[in-house]
Amino acid sequence: MVVVPLGARQDRAAPPTLHPLQNLVADDLALVNETILRRLSSRVDLIPELAGHLIESGGKRIRPMLTLAAARMCGYQGEHHVLLATCVEFIHTATLLHDDVVDGSQLRRGNATANAIWGNQPSVLVGDFLFSRSFQLMLEAESMKILAILADASAVIAEGEVLQLLTSNNTGTTEDAYLDVVLSKTAALFAAAARIGAVLAERPQAEEDGLQSYGRNLGVAFQLVDDVLDFTARESNLGKTIGDDFRDGKITLPVVLAFRRGNDTERAFWRRSLVDGDQRDGDLEHARDLLERHGTLADTLARARHYGAIARDALAIFPPGPEKAALLSVIDFCIERGH
Amino acid sequence: MVVVPLGARQDRAAPPTLHPLQNLVADDLALVNETILRRLSSRVDLIPELAGHLIESGGKRIRPMLTLAAARMCGYQGEHHVLLATCVEFIHTATLLHDDVVDGSQLRRGNATANAIWGNQPSVLVGDFLFSRSFQLMLEAESMKILAILADASAVIAEGEVLQLLTSNNTGTTEDAYLDVVLSKTAALFAAAARIGAVLAERPQAEEDGLQSYGRNLGVAFQLVDDVLDFTARESNLGKTIGDDFRDGKITLPVVLAFRRGNDTERAFWRRSLVDGDQRDGDLEHARDLLERHGTLADTLARARHYGAIARDALAIFPPGPEKAALLSVIDFCIERGH
Repeated sequence: MVVVPLGARQDRAAPPTLHPLQNLVADDLALVNETILRRLSSRVDLIPELAGHLIESGGKRIRPMLTLAAARMCGYQGEHHVLLATCVEFIHTATLLHDDVVDGSQLRRGNATANAIWGNQPSVLVGDFLFSRSFQLMLEAESMKILAILADASAVIAEGEVLQLLTSNNTGTTEDAYLDVVLSKTAALFAAAARIGAVLAERPQAEEDGLQSYGRNLGVAFQLVDDVLDFTARESNLGKTIGDDFRDGKITLPVVLAFRRGNDTERAFWRRSLVDGDQRDGDLEHARDLLERHGTLADTLARARHYGAIARDALAIFPPGPEKAALLSVIDFCIERGH
Repeated sequence: MVVVPLGARQDRAAPPTLHPLQNLVADDLALVNETILRRLSSRVDLIPELAGHLIESGGKRIRPMLTLAAARMCGYQGEHHVLLATCVEFIHTATLLHDDVVDGSQLRRGNATANAIWGNQPSVLVGDFLFSRSFQLMLEAESMKILAILADASAVIAEGEVLQLLTSNNTGTTEDAYLDVVLSKTAALFAAAARIGAVLAERPQAEEDGLQSYGRNLGVAFQLVDDVLDFTARESNLGKTIGDDFRDGKITLPVVLAFRRGNDTERAFWRRSLVDGDQRDGDLEHARDLLERHGTLADTLARARHYGAIARDALAIFPPGPEKAALLSVIDFCIERGH
């Protein structure tokens, strides 16, 4: 049972948006966007051009906004949150560039991917540049603890991506094993982004842990909803091709559940289409039918709500206020979003 | 005019080797190799397997040995040089993994490349893991200055790789422009590896600068000889396919010089084979003939000796001793090596 705070319930009729968070951190986010542009600069023009193509393509900036709002909620008065939010966005962008190469994706956020435009080679190398640049920026915040948090998160993300590659064509993947991938590849950066706010403000360990737990569970919820949207979203909303995960043979939670609940014929279908990579006309539609029949899209959303509830409780130790309300509203957005 | 120290002159008859350096740092290098293995570990088995395949494939370990010998020459008594030498090797390995993906290389150090065995996807992601892991390790040395040196070097390397991609098919590349690529993609890590030794030992700026200059010029010499070996080495010595650079359309210094010295017919040949990528039977042999005819392989080696001489003078401020002698012998090895 998710307890929805009064503030959120009032606008329950309209779908939740990121506006509360965006409004709260608008000034800081403008500084982050400036910093992104300034710190992307390189004597090699292709670097800001290619990275800028992705960064300016209408990403939601959820991760850097978590850093900004968390720092503010914790009473941080300095300037380093802008720098670190930029780092978080650079790390995220680097992983997206490499993900799109690894998956051979052609479309992201409604635009051609960098690898589709410039090829795989510069996408790999510009991703490397962004990783290195993010570490250069972090150093300016002069906090060994924050450096460790972000370096650890980067290593865990890479580990999670390799793990996903290994499990991606395995229909025997359990929900636990899939959750393990999600915790690494997605939740680790959400968790680090939020936690940094408390570290910057030098708050007690309990607040650091609370924000870490909030980010981690929010990240899981975000990814599970992403998995559902890959099957259900309208392409114009999603900004990427519907069924990308299916075509890549990715075993996401809706499929994990449908495979386990299915009969022999259905399992043969999942094996042929996802493991053998033998995909035929109508397969995506058939896959969607199976997910609907077994209710696994709805159940994946139910799981997402569960992690959302944990994220909500993780913030319970913080006193009420506009920052906390905005961070709570992000949970609702992540779960009910259509893109 | 290169002044060869007496110690080196005595064994002038035999080709220079890395043995003086290897013998000097043998104990520390054994610790580095242990640290590499221990710090490669991950709950995802493929990561140490793939990275270990490359790291244990008989690389020369020049870069980490520079850190070890420089630290020792500067009188460093601590343990962090082992950790940082490991970082340097991890950064180098990450760039090799990504390079081989970008170049589509099949052979390195006489073995199949990681991308040839496991595919491009895990090679990209394990490279990312190694970058992140190297930053995790660096933090343990607790030196913001060293963190900055290595983060800067990593960003410069990535910049240089992108620059190389952009200039690689341009026959109009000048020697200066090519040198710019080499300084970034190769010399930056050699320079950082050597400089760290002085920083660890908290030596004066002049010594730091001396080691930085030594590493930088050694790196340029190393790369220029690499470019020559790509055309001349025996495949069994080189451990990679002869003519790889040529087949990739890479414009290295021997080609830069031959293009500029050639006639219209020759320039048409370089354009067809390197820019248009229209390569035919016998093209590699014809390219080698043109390089011989214009003496550009010999002249590239002469350029390498020039940078070697600068590297040698950069160490002149250090008193004589076994470490300095070993570092000087590396210059001879890098220039006269056959692999």
